Amino acid sequence: MSNIEEFSVRTDLALEAQEMNVHPDEKANKSDDGVTVNEEKIDDITLTYVKVDEAGAARIGKKAGHYVTLESQAIRKQDTELQVRLSTCLSHQLKKLMKECGIKDSDRCLIVGLGNNNVTPDAIGPLVMNEVVVTSHLFKLQPETVSEGYRSVSAVSPGVMGVTGIETSDMIHGIIHETNPDFVIAVDALASRSINRINATIQLSDTGIHPGSGVGNKRKEISKETYDIPVISIGVPTVVDAVTITSDSIDYILKHFGREWEEKDRPSGVLSPSMNPFERKTLTDEDMPGEEERKAVLGMLGQLGVNEKKQLIKEVLTPLGHNLMVTPKEVDSFVRDMAHVISSGVNSALHEAIEDGEASSYTRI
Amino acid sequence: MSNIEEFSVRTDLALEAQEMNVHPDEKANKSDDGVTVNEEKIDDITLTYVKVDEAGAARIGKKAGHYVTLESQAIRKQDTELQVRLSTCLSHQLKKLMKECGIKDSDRCLIVGLGNNNVTPDAIGPLVMNEVVVTSHLFKLQPETVSEGYRSVSAVSPGVMGVTGIETSDMIHGIIHETNPDFVIAVDALASRSINRINATIQLSDTGIHPGSGVGNKRKEISKETYDIPVISIGVPTVVDAVTITSDSIDYILKHFGREWEEKDRPSGVLSPSMNPFERKTLTDEDMPGEEERKAVLGMLGQLGVNEKKQLIKEVLTPLGHNLMVTPKEVDSFVRDMAHVISSGVNSALHEAIEDGEASSYTRI
Amino acid sequence: MSNIEEFSVRTDLALEAQEMNVHPDEKANKSDDGVTVNEEKIDDITLTYVKVDEAGAARIGKKAGHYVTLESQAIRKQDTELQVRLSTCLSHQLKKLMKECGIKDSDRCLIVGLGNNNVTPDAIGPLVMNEVVVTSHLFKLQPETVSEGYRSVSAVSPGVMGVTGIETSDMIHGIIHETNPDFVIAVDALASRSINRINATIQLSDTGIHPGSGVGNKRKEISKETYDIPVISIGVPTVVDAVTITSDSIDYILKHFGREWEEKDRPSGVLSPSMNPFERKTLTDEDMPGEEERKAVLGMLGQLGVNEKKQLIKEVLTPLGHNLMVTPKEVDSFVRDMAHVISSGVNSALHEAIEDGEASSYTRI
Amino acid sequence: MSNIEEFSVRTDLALEAQEMNVHPDEKANKSDDGVTVNEEKIDDITLTYVKVDEAGAARIGKKAGHYVTLESQAIRKQDTELQVRLSTCLSHQLKKLMKECGIKDSDRCLIVGLGNNNVTPDAIGPLVMNEVVVTSHLFKLQPETVSEGYRSVSAVSPGVMGVTGIETSDMIHGIIHETNPDFVIAVDALASRSINRINATIQLSDTGIHPGSGVGNKRKEISKETYDIPVISIGVPTVVDAVTITSDSIDYILKHFGREWEEKDRPSGVLSPSMNPFERKTLTDEDMPGEEERKAVLGMLGQLGVNEKKQLIKEVLTPLGHNLMVTPKEVDSFVRDMAHVISSGVNSALHEAIEDGEASSYTRI
Repeated sequence: MSNIEEFSVRTDLALEAQEMNVHPDEKANKSDDGVTVNEEKIDDITLTYVKVDEAGAARIGKKAGHYVTLESQAIRKQDTELQVRLSTCLSHQLKKLMKECGIKDSDRCLIVGLGNNNVTPDAIGPLVMNEVVVTSHLFKLQPETVSEGYRSVSAVSPGVMGVTGIETSDMIHGIIHETNPDFVIAVDALASRSINRINATIQLSDTGIHPGSGVGNKRKEISKETYDIPVISIGVPTVVDAVTITSDSIDYILKHFGREWEEKDRPSGVLSPSMNPFERKTLTDEDMPGEEERKAVLGMLGQLGVNEKKQLIKEVLTPLGHNLMVTPKEVDSFVRDMAHVISSGVNSALHEAIEDGEASSYTRI
Repeated sequence: MSNIEEFSVRTDLALEAQEMNVHPDEKANKSDDGVTVNEEKIDDITLTYVKVDEAGAARIGKKAGHYVTLESQAIRKQDTELQVRLSTCLSHQLKKLMKECGIKDSDRCLIVGLGNNNVTPDAIGPLVMNEVVVTSHLFKLQPETVSEGYRSVSAVSPGVMGVTGIETSDMIHGIIHETNPDFVIAVDALASRSINRINATIQLSDTGIHPGSGVGNKRKEISKETYDIPVISIGVPTVVDAVTITSDSIDYILKHFGREWEEKDRPSGVLSPSMNPFERKTLTDEDMPGEEERKAVLGMLGQLGVNEKKQLIKEVLTPLGHNLMVTPKEVDSFVRDMAHVISSGVNSALHEAIEDGEASSYTRI
Repeated sequence: MSNIEEFSVRTDLALEAQEMNVHPDEKANKSDDGVTVNEEKIDDITLTYVKVDEAGAARIGKKAGHYVTLESQAIRKQDTELQVRLSTCLSHQLKKLMKECGIKDSDRCLIVGLGNNNVTPDAIGPLVMNEVVVTSHLFKLQPETVSEGYRSVSAVSPGVMGVTGIETSDMIHGIIHETNPDFVIAVDALASRSINRINATIQLSDTGIHPGSGVGNKRKEISKETYDIPVISIGVPTVVDAVTITSDSIDYILKHFGREWEEKDRPSGVLSPSMNPFERKTLTDEDMPGEEERKAVLGMLGQLGVNEKKQLIKEVLTPLGHNLMVTPKEVDSFVRDMAHVISSGVNSALHEAIEDGEASSYTRI
Repeated sequence: MSNIEEFSVRTDLALEAQEMNVHPDEKANKSDDGVTVNEEKIDDITLTYVKVDEAGAARIGKKAGHYVTLESQAIRKQDTELQVRLSTCLSHQLKKLMKECGIKDSDRCLIVGLGNNNVTPDAIGPLVMNEVVVTSHLFKLQPETVSEGYRSVSAVSPGVMGVTGIETSDMIHGIIHETNPDFVIAVDALASRSINRINATIQLSDTGIHPGSGVGNKRKEISKETYDIPVISIGVPTVVDAVTITSDSIDYILKHFGREWEEKDRPSGVLSPSMNPFERKTLTDEDMPGEEERKAVLGMLGQLGVNEKKQLIKEVLTPLGHNLMVTPKEVDSFVRDMAHVISSGVNSALHEAIEDGEASSYTRI
């Protein structure tokens, strides 16, 4: 039996938690008990809706609630146009989730930019916080200056415990207690289980931010349960550890051979993918070969399940100081662009007066 | 009668408030009712202790309490050695002020770095906040790891209302309410009445931070009265407005001629300062000429009192959009170095285990 | 006779040099010998074309050639829409000037971003250099990848002598010698004679960058004469000294009273500007009162000419260490936005394929 | 036979190139033909001297010359004291290498900070360039102001070709041609073959900087051969690719089992390392098990040589877009601290007047 608890802390993405609980021999199963998964494709963006109920929560180690994942190469390709579309899509999904949480148009929002401004891969929260349109002081001090179509929004960046000496959740609790918002949107950098999802994924959820999650260490939960108001989280994976990179690579090696063998067995004369290298960009769970083949390629290691393999690699690397958390070399521009996409999306989701197309001109670092 | 209220907001320095209330015809008077002023010189640092009681508070427009001003050219000259001495001196003065406020060695401190990290001349508070040694999380979570000679310290940088939408004092109140520190040290950038004091002055006081003060607009008071615990403020003037620059310059022109006339009247044969240009670096209130001479040099303007003159210049410049707040061109290095001096001083004042000499190696951005 | 040499170094703007050589008693004269001045207004942008011939050069202390000044409040108002228009206008003027210099569509350009990246008010050149679209390596290494409508562009940021130990002009000479561009566009921060022009003015010229100019100290000329290829300069005033602020303010005080007296003399019943404060935003040279009035208001000082007055103020302030160079408190956002406007304008002027409207999406920090 | 050329570009460290050419079945051999390796330990710093002659160059794919590697955990541990010692050690090694290159005390130095200031893991060169003590302008313009014990030093940061459009080596050539230095010190970020060496290693060499090396792509060689003056390079590995991480991890897994089996075979009663977990921090080449064991653990993959394994992993990951270059999450502080260590070391190596202990107070960002 795999040790879910051990590894659930390694991924903050429900999508990954769901995938991780599929043994290599089972084929991926999208309608498991307690977890409903739906996919949709809009332009180049893959949307995955994961709904987890209490049974599913126990099974995959993620809290019950709604999770929406947006996957896009807009940031990695540094494609401004795709980034605008990603931002628009984020805005729509955020609005939908706000509605599902019962949030009304006039409800007052507190945006919390989690993370550490001085550690680039952990700076998405603070950067977003700096770019959102805040209005709550105007509502309070000069209500006559606020146009139609804006709601009351405030924003804070509480820092991280190593710098402030204060538990992040305590700091937020004090600010909520003093300012009484109706709901919270918390933005944070996450750890990913896959190097491919880094800076290519945004996860929305109504389950808050959880202990042990994220790039830094934020210990207490920031959620509806602790604050008694809805907490919507927006998370972006920006780091991955060496164990994950190795484990993923080993799986890809196995699938690579699985695919090769399968293709060899096909009747000749059929157009083989290996003849058209450009079609062969992805390897899927379908390509994972059977146990014998896995043993041939990778010996004892090839026979382990996902979590056992990770556990073994972790046991080897950690005592050697080899299990570093890493981020792509282009971290500076990735993080800046992602913060811009998120703040634009948040601005137009929160303020009716800010059209999707315009949103980006409202944000500036 | 001059309008004190109007201008008291222009200077956050008690030293300047005191000076501003001397009419050009009176000579500076250092023992005015309600305001006691003492000066001391340590190395190149000029220390001025201003004690204001209730009567004095009404007269000069500064709150009753202790004010200590450290003046040094350490930052402007970019002299690392002088900066270490300034930091040591700051540490000693801060310890003395803490003692006067009844703060005990074991009292827990919250450091508040006021200002806007993205506006360089307003970033001293956030920069200091990033460099101080915080320990309160260790006292709470791993008390066994804290060595002798450290007290519990936490630190926050609440941002500015234009960015957060929340009154800075409300945010701090929420954090104090949640974390219960025994006293607060608030660090802020100030506006100065003199271009010469910019980045050359540090003011300590036990009177807190006040409405309308500072580089940005922080509206509500942050003080013992509002939070019920001692609030020590550390302020550094980093900006000045065009009215002040003009007014100061006009005074210097008057004093320049006052000095020249006086020297002309001296018996010949006496060594005149004008013969030795290197001695003639400062002009003092003693050099201000009489009314007739002031009229000759500067006509109607020369006859106005300090505040009337400022008022007139302000009335001319403001409608033209000419009364900008400015900062020296070298603002980046000045602010960074000043933040380093202050954080080093604060660290060694708060933690007995941090020696004055060592303090700087404990701080890093 | 005023000492032009002394002060010509204080302004890098031909516009200001021209204005400075008008004695208060003469009225401004726009068709002086050797200097032709034309004004145009496009949207909120005031364009001034100054053409200086050899005679004019001697008279106003600026090199013979074309100078175009764009004045706009787009940056100060942080108005994104006005900034786009300013950028478009800059692009058109730059194209015109390039044509006047005989630069062809296929000519290869070297963009030189002068200044110091670590001193914010001097960082416009390096920031622009980072945002321009460079193509020369593609022309050289992968010419087949370059689309129609792009020319060969390279860009360098040579740093400042205090940091590199190398004369900036020597460094540029070495790079030109090695890479053989057909023309140079040099971008630099300037000193202004007026606080009002800071971050509100862009000057184009075909006369290069000159000794003693600018925010730092760049000693040798960067011009057609030294490099033997056209050098177009784009300069933005970002700093001003205390002498200038004082001198400007004193002139405004005189004009303020001049305006008041004039209005007092008008027949009553006529609508006086003083009754409508909103009309009274600017004071012009027309408002400067006669000698007697100037003496009444400002005594001896009021009777001095522009340059004599500056000289006197300088003599007083400099020995006191009071003549600092300053920049507006908002320097960070001003400089960033201005760099964005300039790089957008340069990109669409250099590359036919980049439309004015689109240009900004090609630039990113 | 393994394809050395293919992989020599993956490591810029001679130390790694040497290690990479040892087949798993040979034991590491420190006196191979053409390559002499000596090790020394000073405090916590491991120094490795690699001398490569022409025969060795052909064998390991690194240019003939001297290579000195300093390995220390000073940066990763953020230990200020160890960093000072590392800087002192670097200074000594640099002086020794300069002497071996025939560089005299009065020879004039050009420091070249390679890399991209806006990509943090590639910014070490530009950061060092900003912190070194430059004097060449003083020697030229005010020789009387230069104290004894300083040599003429200048410094440039040429940028990267993607930003400038100019080949870095051409830019440097132009600057050398114009300024005529006697030798060059080039500082650059490198790619590593091991995640453990990142930010923990400094390599000095007299062989210059080579095509295809480094974090970005610098195509032409910067060396004595191209510039005709000695070129000393200082390189720091800051990035690693996913192939390397995976390959390293797989080797560690093999060695992990090798060690376990070996220990199992020992006579019981002997103190086994597994009983004292704190001694078991490193795995060495001695721990690599024999072919049969490798096959059992890792199947086919376990039987491949170092380079074959890397080649296979690369063939699998690259088409999937999975072979990202990554850097540790703490890249901001690592790079800043490393730049500080290097600039301090360079300053005291170049200027006799700068004592080792003092060096750090001469450098500031």
